[in-house]
Amino acid sequence: MRPVSRAGEAGLLRSIFKTFGGPGRGPILLGSGDDAAAIRVPAGRALVVSQDDQVEGTHFQRSWTDPYRLAGRLIRINLSDLAAMGGARPLACTVSAGLPASLPEAWFRRFLSGLAAHSRRHGLPVAGGNLSRSSRLFFSLAIFGSLPPRSLVRRSGARPGDILAGVGPVGDAAAGLRLLRGKRPVPGWARPLVRRFWEPEPRLNEARRLAGRASSMMDNSDGLRRSIETLAASSGKGFAVRLDEIPASRPLARWCGQRRISLRRFQLDGGEDYGLLFTVPPRDWAAVQKAVPAVYRLGEATVGRGVRIDGSGRSRGFEHFR
Amino acid sequence: MRPVSRAGEAGLLRSIFKTFGGPGRGPILLGSGDDAAAIRVPAGRALVVSQDDQVEGTHFQRSWTDPYRLAGRLIRINLSDLAAMGGARPLACTVSAGLPASLPEAWFRRFLSGLAAHSRRHGLPVAGGNLSRSSRLFFSLAIFGSLPPRSLVRRSGARPGDILAGVGPVGDAAAGLRLLRGKRPVPGWARPLVRRFWEPEPRLNEARRLAGRASSMMDNSDGLRRSIETLAASSGKGFAVRLDEIPASRPLARWCGQRRISLRRFQLDGGEDYGLLFTVPPRDWAAVQKAVPAVYRLGEATVGRGVRIDGSGRSRGFEHFR
Repeated sequence: MRPVSRAGEAGLLRSIFKTFGGPGRGPILLGSGDDAAAIRVPAGRALVVSQDDQVEGTHFQRSWTDPYRLAGRLIRINLSDLAAMGGARPLACTVSAGLPASLPEAWFRRFLSGLAAHSRRHGLPVAGGNLSRSSRLFFSLAIFGSLPPRSLVRRSGARPGDILAGVGPVGDAAAGLRLLRGKRPVPGWARPLVRRFWEPEPRLNEARRLAGRASSMMDNSDGLRRSIETLAASSGKGFAVRLDEIPASRPLARWCGQRRISLRRFQLDGGEDYGLLFTVPPRDWAAVQKAVPAVYRLGEATVGRGVRIDGSGRSRGFEHFR
Repeated sequence: MRPVSRAGEAGLLRSIFKTFGGPGRGPILLGSGDDAAAIRVPAGRALVVSQDDQVEGTHFQRSWTDPYRLAGRLIRINLSDLAAMGGARPLACTVSAGLPASLPEAWFRRFLSGLAAHSRRHGLPVAGGNLSRSSRLFFSLAIFGSLPPRSLVRRSGARPGDILAGVGPVGDAAAGLRLLRGKRPVPGWARPLVRRFWEPEPRLNEARRLAGRASSMMDNSDGLRRSIETLAASSGKGFAVRLDEIPASRPLARWCGQRRISLRRFQLDGGEDYGLLFTVPPRDWAAVQKAVPAVYRLGEATVGRGVRIDGSGRSRGFEHFR
């Protein structure tokens, strides 16, 4: 397998510019191939920016990773941040790659194919980026979107009495990650869990229907418990939470059953879901249920601080550095 | 020394939000601390975006790196990309950090201080970012600026007869990097070279004076020879280059003399300079010299392709993957 060091930076850049360059289209005035890219932001809209990474050994292992799917996940988790602000419309992204000299060129080319395919599917042109040599493989994607400033939904707007709710599967992706990390082949019935890990669904449409109604919103990528705690801390409020309405997929229930672990606790602490967590004033709850039928109710915001969760023991969410 | 793993992600994020968060100011509608940041782009201006990284073992070694200065370099090299597009006005940036669990917390806090200080100095608010665990320390900065679309200067506009010129020191930063990598202490007379490495000057003001006159422009961070070749390839033209007008600092001449290496060849192949390389139609050359007195002339664009350099042997520019 020819390593990227044989292709050299010039060779890699040529294929990158061929894939992502060319004259500007849509919001792109100038794409990949110059010192920077230039993008047209629609008048009257705010620019929404975020950055999220995938690092080998932390977020994925090459042994169980298809680079095509990894590229898709990188795009999807960043789109999820645009969703969490109120469903910002994607404009473009830039991607930095840190590549070990020994990385097979074919691996990187497959990553680029995945990036191109998901970029088209999600209407998110890759407008530029950077290549570095790095003994540890990593990708850092910066995403740009736009939305009317009044549609911006922050983490800090929950008021006492507001209903806490979520949308999107809970726990599937974390189980999928454990299946990938495991030594055994993934049985057919469990493959949807693995798919949830690689293909978290950015909730852009749901977020747009919630914007204007939700008093606070974020994505729940760090696990439901920790995300609820973050929303509480950002809003300076507390939450009384019940777990009985959280949706549980059939494969997840089966997987938890086989491993004799508590489904509810796993859903609380799993992480990787990239669904939305939000609050709405009680008067808007019926409208929200109608606009986004898949929402599930988690509880209510309280005057006092702190999060009380019924029907679960204490345990920790995902902590990146431990 | 307490490692970052002891502080934990939550503790690190708290100090990051304390340093960079808070209510929006200037173009920042919503800064660090939410799923994404929101930025106001002035009406009628194009958004200019770029991303550039610093990876341990590739761009720096911890043994000779002050994290405060590293943060400054990260900001400056990205500002240089805004300059190279025609002097785009900085709006904000986001920063992703990949941190080994064993990294001393004090090291990272000093990096954050440097980021905050340089962010203020250059009017470039840090609007967000990401923290990941990574066995290899890296930083990826995405920068956002704005400029009127008609001020955009690409790499591809050189026409036959245009004068090829540059601005900024050439070779100093590369010598500074070699001094840092060396085993010996840096003598007093050579410290300006090290400073050029850590503090490359983003040529925003010069670039603004060149925009509207320059037919093509880029920064010369990959070495003068390679940058000239890139500009030639992007424009589909050639260049006839002479080296006699390139400025050479006294410490660089002394350093090259001591090592018995050719000053001109070192300047051609050094890299790390982050000066500007550009072309202007001959009729505008006098005006450019008046507007930016420090410019030096390198040659002319030719009809035929390829770069001919007088007064130097063949050698290679910086190749990231070899």
